[in-house]
Amino acid sequence: VRCIDWADGAVRLIDQTALPDQERWLDVTDPDELVDAIRRLAVRGAPALGAAGALGVALAAHRATHLTAAGYEQTVRAAAARLRDARPTAVNLARGVDRALARLGEGSAAVLAEARAVLDEEAAACRAIGERGADLLQQGRPLRILTHCNTGWLAAVEWGTALGIVTVLDERGWVERVYVDETRPLLQGARLTAWELAARGVDHRVVVDGAAPSVIARGIVDAVVVGADRIAANGDVANKIGTYPLALAAARAGIPFVVAAPESTVDLTTATGGGIEIEERDPAEVTAGPAYNPAFDVTPADLVTAVVTERRTVRPSRGETL
Amino acid sequence: VRCIDWADGAVRLIDQTALPDQERWLDVTDPDELVDAIRRLAVRGAPALGAAGALGVALAAHRATHLTAAGYEQTVRAAAARLRDARPTAVNLARGVDRALARLGEGSAAVLAEARAVLDEEAAACRAIGERGADLLQQGRPLRILTHCNTGWLAAVEWGTALGIVTVLDERGWVERVYVDETRPLLQGARLTAWELAARGVDHRVVVDGAAPSVIARGIVDAVVVGADRIAANGDVANKIGTYPLALAAARAGIPFVVAAPESTVDLTTATGGGIEIEERDPAEVTAGPAYNPAFDVTPADLVTAVVTERRTVRPSRGETL
Repeated sequence: VRCIDWADGAVRLIDQTALPDQERWLDVTDPDELVDAIRRLAVRGAPALGAAGALGVALAAHRATHLTAAGYEQTVRAAAARLRDARPTAVNLARGVDRALARLGEGSAAVLAEARAVLDEEAAACRAIGERGADLLQQGRPLRILTHCNTGWLAAVEWGTALGIVTVLDERGWVERVYVDETRPLLQGARLTAWELAARGVDHRVVVDGAAPSVIARGIVDAVVVGADRIAANGDVANKIGTYPLALAAARAGIPFVVAAPESTVDLTTATGGGIEIEERDPAEVTAGPAYNPAFDVTPADLVTAVVTERRTVRPSRGETL
Repeated sequence: VRCIDWADGAVRLIDQTALPDQERWLDVTDPDELVDAIRRLAVRGAPALGAAGALGVALAAHRATHLTAAGYEQTVRAAAARLRDARPTAVNLARGVDRALARLGEGSAAVLAEARAVLDEEAAACRAIGERGADLLQQGRPLRILTHCNTGWLAAVEWGTALGIVTVLDERGWVERVYVDETRPLLQGARLTAWELAARGVDHRVVVDGAAPSVIARGIVDAVVVGADRIAANGDVANKIGTYPLALAAARAGIPFVVAAPESTVDLTTATGGGIEIEERDPAEVTAGPAYNPAFDVTPADLVTAVVTERRTVRPSRGETL
């Protein structure tokens, strides 16, 4: 099952805001409904956002086929711009939009074919990331892994990035327990990752985000594995807010801090993390009073043991760049 | 106003679980009700727990005056043991109990006088901590301070430890903004500290706990100031879960990490943080599924810029011990 896909002239996606209480699927037929779904995190996670961007352009093209050639192009490009701007930090969204948009002149069927290729590639990449990451971490004994946010099939079309590694390790029998950061403010860990792990029967414990660094310090975690929303050329990693303290704690404890992401999340046009726009979301997600709500943080390259993509393992803490 | 005090044969306390929605005061007339209030955090914070322990023994003695001498002693000692065991990490609770209990042979009036002395001393100590801490941090320009949990009058009888420093700095006109960790799972920052700062009119922003380290990394925080539940002889500090990542981030950013606590929180009988019992609370405070819920963490002495008490400033990161 894919968390987002094309279905009979619509974009079908599982509404992640309703999980784990309800498994509700939405058929989105208007590109601006999809923009709204992206903004309110009904679909989220860097690879899934790439798919959403590409499918959104395909949806716009599909709906605009009755227009004149000029109207078609103008309408689809305008929708694409709104999709691209729905969220700023994950590079995959803009990339997915741009890939589908590049086929615009070939007609809506070509645009849809390109969007489907994006989905297929993300799915295949994640399986490869899972295998590569599991090979990297496997030590001949069951591991205690700590992860943040959600990086499973909900975030990555059908497989998962960091949680894909956990899944492969679990298939091989090398997972003892997964500690899951609850991931405030929207609780993607407690709501989504715990739900995915329970479905697989993987032993897990949710911890509040503030607890994770001391859980690492106590020596009961063998490795931290997280995803990414954008990786700069130097190896700095933007990911869900709350990732950076895990890297600090892992470095102090001397355990690996591994970032799992497809090549589509690597942004060589951004030299360092300082160049990554950090989305600020509604303070009301945090509390009713005054709040500051950055949605991502940047982990400096020197704290990143390895970036694992579908085709390479890069070690920024040893000075390797992407 | 004191958050806990003796009033007409009862222990009167503000129910912190009801804040900020309701300002509800409880008159507790049974020591075991007080044990329950301590367990469910209706009264909390290391200095306030010291007061609660001493007042609880005074309450037990007050209620037992009609018994025989042997029955009186047995009853009060049993209540004292239950009070002492209500929560394990904050040393003040056991100390408050033991101070009041030491006067048991002199009659219930002497026990109450000792309990009242504990309250008066905590209140006076916190004012001195506030002045000393403000002197330490003041730099001739308004400061951006980050704090965790609640360390104001709600936690410390009538003044505050870390938040007492903020209050003195604010009186002097040197506070620009306070970043307040929401402090999951029970949100003492978002509920209690934000409420205290709003009442004073201090500019503040609540952040999720996972955001604080990157807020520090961005260079928009001048100092981290927190309280403590127990400080070991070597300078290791047990405090509310989520404190340790702040110390890691402050050290990396090169800003001060200051711990504010009365001498009654310093435990010279505990050599290092490894000897401090960490309370584990109900997983249901975190999530409905499987969870691990340690209530405190230990920050190693080398990350602690200064411990500020009512009579000294000790610098563990320079190798000074308590």
